[in-house]
Amino acid sequence: MIDDLIAAVGRGNVLTGEDIGPRYYSDAVGRVGQLPRAVVRPRTTAEVSRVLAICHAHGAPVTTQGGMTGLVQGAMPQAGEIALSLERMNDIEEVDTGNGTVTVQAGCVLQRLQERVEAEGFSFPLDLGARGSCTIGGNIATNAGGNRVIRYGMMRDLVLGLEAVTADGTVVDGLRKYIKNNTGLDLKQLFIGSEGVLGVVTRAVLRIYPQPGDRIVAACAMPGFAEVTGLLQHMRRELAGDLTAFEVMWNRYYRQVIEKIPGVQAPFPADRPFYAIVEASGADRDKVSAGLQAALEGALEQGLIEDAVLSKSQAEALAIWKIRDASVEVSGTMRPCVGFDVSLPIDRMAEFADRADADARGFDPEGYASVFGHLGDGNLHVVVHHSGRQADAAHRIERMIYDLTGSYGGSISAEHGIGLLKRPYLDRSRTAAEIALMRTLKQAMDPKGILNPGRIVEA
Amino acid sequence: MIDDLIAAVGRGNVLTGEDIGPRYYSDAVGRVGQLPRAVVRPRTTAEVSRVLAICHAHGAPVTTQGGMTGLVQGAMPQAGEIALSLERMNDIEEVDTGNGTVTVQAGCVLQRLQERVEAEGFSFPLDLGARGSCTIGGNIATNAGGNRVIRYGMMRDLVLGLEAVTADGTVVDGLRKYIKNNTGLDLKQLFIGSEGVLGVVTRAVLRIYPQPGDRIVAACAMPGFAEVTGLLQHMRRELAGDLTAFEVMWNRYYRQVIEKIPGVQAPFPADRPFYAIVEASGADRDKVSAGLQAALEGALEQGLIEDAVLSKSQAEALAIWKIRDASVEVSGTMRPCVGFDVSLPIDRMAEFADRADADARGFDPEGYASVFGHLGDGNLHVVVHHSGRQADAAHRIERMIYDLTGSYGGSISAEHGIGLLKRPYLDRSRTAAEIALMRTLKQAMDPKGILNPGRIVEA
Repeated sequence: MIDDLIAAVGRGNVLTGEDIGPRYYSDAVGRVGQLPRAVVRPRTTAEVSRVLAICHAHGAPVTTQGGMTGLVQGAMPQAGEIALSLERMNDIEEVDTGNGTVTVQAGCVLQRLQERVEAEGFSFPLDLGARGSCTIGGNIATNAGGNRVIRYGMMRDLVLGLEAVTADGTVVDGLRKYIKNNTGLDLKQLFIGSEGVLGVVTRAVLRIYPQPGDRIVAACAMPGFAEVTGLLQHMRRELAGDLTAFEVMWNRYYRQVIEKIPGVQAPFPADRPFYAIVEASGADRDKVSAGLQAALEGALEQGLIEDAVLSKSQAEALAIWKIRDASVEVSGTMRPCVGFDVSLPIDRMAEFADRADADARGFDPEGYASVFGHLGDGNLHVVVHHSGRQADAAHRIERMIYDLTGSYGGSISAEHGIGLLKRPYLDRSRTAAEIALMRTLKQAMDPKGILNPGRIVEA
Repeated sequence: MIDDLIAAVGRGNVLTGEDIGPRYYSDAVGRVGQLPRAVVRPRTTAEVSRVLAICHAHGAPVTTQGGMTGLVQGAMPQAGEIALSLERMNDIEEVDTGNGTVTVQAGCVLQRLQERVEAEGFSFPLDLGARGSCTIGGNIATNAGGNRVIRYGMMRDLVLGLEAVTADGTVVDGLRKYIKNNTGLDLKQLFIGSEGVLGVVTRAVLRIYPQPGDRIVAACAMPGFAEVTGLLQHMRRELAGDLTAFEVMWNRYYRQVIEKIPGVQAPFPADRPFYAIVEASGADRDKVSAGLQAALEGALEQGLIEDAVLSKSQAEALAIWKIRDASVEVSGTMRPCVGFDVSLPIDRMAEFADRADADARGFDPEGYASVFGHLGDGNLHVVVHHSGRQADAAHRIERMIYDLTGSYGGSISAEHGIGLLKRPYLDRSRTAAEIALMRTLKQAMDPKGILNPGRIVEA
C-alpha cells in the first residue's frame, strides 16, 4: 500500500517512521497521539482521490489533518492510521470581488486567506485565535465559529461551494459561486461540521464582504442577567446589521481579569454582577459611533445598564477587547481547571451558571466556576477550578458539567466539535434517534469505516 | 392499511374517494395530479410517526403536502400515493423574544406566523408571494428564498432546530434554540431543501429579528451591466447590514412594465440599458435614508448610475417596488411564455441574458427573453416569449434554457426546487457524482423508497 501511495503523490510526500515529525501526531494544546503508519501529502484533488481510493481498497483507516489546532482529538492519529495532510494544498485560487467570493484550497491557513482578501479591499469575516495555524479545510470540517458569528454566522454560513472526496476516492465537485441553489440535496452540508467522517474537504468557494470600518466598542456594567438579555435585545433592535459582537462576563471572570492580568485597564470596579462588551461596525465610523452612543443612552434610561464606556479610538477599542481576550490567561491563573464550550437557551444561562458554580463547590471545597461567552450566539465558556487533590478530577468534572448541560437542554460543544474526546458525552446533547441517523449516514457514505474512525460515533 | 391509518389518526382524518377535495391533487398554478389513494391528516408528531410506520410496513408511497404552492410538482400526488397533509399541525407553539426564536408546527401558514411574530414586536424575515397559502413545512422542505435573502439568507439560514420523521416513522428530534451547536452531524440540513424525499418536517425552531424600521427604496437608471455590478459592490460597502434588497431589471422588462402595466409610475423613461432597485432598512429611518442618499450621490459621482429616485414615504417606496412586483402581470402579457428561475455567477449574467434572448429569437422569429432578478443573490428570472406555433415549444424552450444555464455553470433552480418537473434537467446543474450521492443518501434513509418517490431523482 505504501508503494501505491508513493506512486500516487511522489516519494517525498509519503513520510514513514522517523521521517514523521511530531507535528503530525501532536496538537496545539500539547497532546500527543500515536505515530501514524504514514503521512501522505497530496498536492491536488486528483491526488487526494487516488490516495483515498488506495486506502479504501486496503481498508486502511485515514485521519485528515489541517493545522492540528483542534481541541477534541479529531485529527490526532490513532494506532495504524494514515495521516492525510492537506498542507501542500494551500493555494488561494481566486479572489472574485464581483461575485464576492474567494476560491481556496483546504490547506490554506486562515490568516493568509484573511490577509489576501484584505489586500483586495474585502474581508473574510471568520476569525478565531488559531488564525495563524488553522486551515480553511479544518474550519469547514469543524464548522468554526469565533467572535463575529452574531453578524456573519458560522463557517457553514460562509461556504457557497465545496469540493470534497468521499471514502472511495469519488470527487464530489460542488464549487459554485451563487447563494441560491435549490437543485436537489445540498450535499456540501454533509461535509461541513462533520469532522471528516464523511469525506475530505479539498476546495471551497467562500463568501467575502466589504471591509467594515473601524470597530466601535462599549463596555457596560449591569445589575442582573435579565438586564443583560434586555440589553442584547435592545442592541439588536437599535443597531440592527451594525451589531458585530455581544459578549457577556459574569462578575467573577471580570474580577479575575482586572485583579490578575497585567496590562488590563479596568473601565469599572468589579462590584457589579455582570459586564458586557458590545461592538458595532459599519461603513461610516461617525455614524456607527453615534448610533452606539444613542443606543447606550437609551439603555441607561431603561435601567438596562448602570455604567458604560464607549471607545473613542482603535486603541480604546482594543483595550476593552483585552478584557475579553484575556480568557486564556485567566484560565492559566485557575489551574488546575477544566474548560467547557457549551450552548444554552439564553433564558436558562443564568441558572445554569449558578448551578455550575454550585456543583463545582460541591465537588471540591476549593472549586468554583468562571463564566463568560458569546451571549448573542447562545454560547458560554465555563472554566471550573478544582484543588487537584481529588482522584480523576478532570473526568469527573467533565461528566458533571456535561450532565448539567444536557439537563438544561444545552449543547456540550458549541464550537469545538466532538472528535474522540467528547464522544462519551454526545448523548447529553443528541437523542438516540439522532445518533442512530449519524451512524446510518456514516455507514452509507463510508461503509468500510476508513475516514476518521471513532470520531463523533464509535467505529 | 386504510383501517390502520384510521386507527392512527381517526376516521374523520383519513379521506378517500369522493371525499378528497381537489385541493389535495391540484397546485397553485392550476396543474392537476392523480387522485391520491387516501389523504391522511395527522394532528401531532406522534401521529405522523404512526402513519409513516404503517405506510412503511406496507411499502406504500407517500407525498407530503403543505400549501400546494410549489411550482415543480413536488407534492402533487402520483398514482397510488397517500397524501400526507400537515394542515392540522398548524400551531405556533411559542414566540420566545428572549432567545429570538419561534417554535412552530409544519402546517402553519407563513403569513400567520409573520403576523403573530409582528404582534410581539419582532419580524420573521422570510417573505414570498405565496405567503397567504404556503406553509412553514413547505418553506423548509423547499428551502424558500424570496426578497430579503441578501440580508437574512434563505430559509435554511433561519432554521435553528428541526423535528422530522423519517420513512420508518422514527422521530428525529432536534428542536434546539441555539445558533452554535457542533455536536456531530447537523442532521437538520438533511431535511431542509430536500423536498420531502428524506423525511417529513413536523416542527421547527426559527430565528426572529427585531422589526426593521421603514424601508427606504431607490430606483436607479444605469448605462451598462458593469455599472450594475459596480453599484451592488458600492451599496454593499456603503450600506453594510442596512442593505435589504438589490434587484436588477433589463431594459426590456422595465419597458414592458411602464408601457403595459396600469397604475405603475415610471421614475425614468425606458431609454437606459439597466435599472436597479436598492432597498435599505434599519432602526432609524432618517439615518438609513441619509445613508442611502449619500451612497447614491457617491454612485452618481463614480458614474455607476445616470439617474436615481429616492423614496420619501412608504407610498413612494411601494410605488418603486410596484415596478419589480409587476413581474407576474408582465408574464401575463407575454403569453405564450415559459418562465425560469436560475442562478448564475454574477459576472456571467449579462452574457447569459444576451444569449437567452438570442436563443429565444433563434427558436422562434417572434421569440424574445425578458430578464430581471435578485442580483444580490445571483438569482435571475428569465421569461421567454414564443409564438405558440412551434410543436412542443414549452419543452423545447425549457431544454434550451436549461442547457444554456448549465453551460454557464448556473443553477437550473435557484428557489423553486426540482420536484418531478425539473428532474430531467438536474444533470445540467449537478455532476454525476453528486446525483449518485443523492441516491446513496435516499437509499440509506428510505430504503423502500416510500417518501415522495421520483422527486429530485428517479424512484
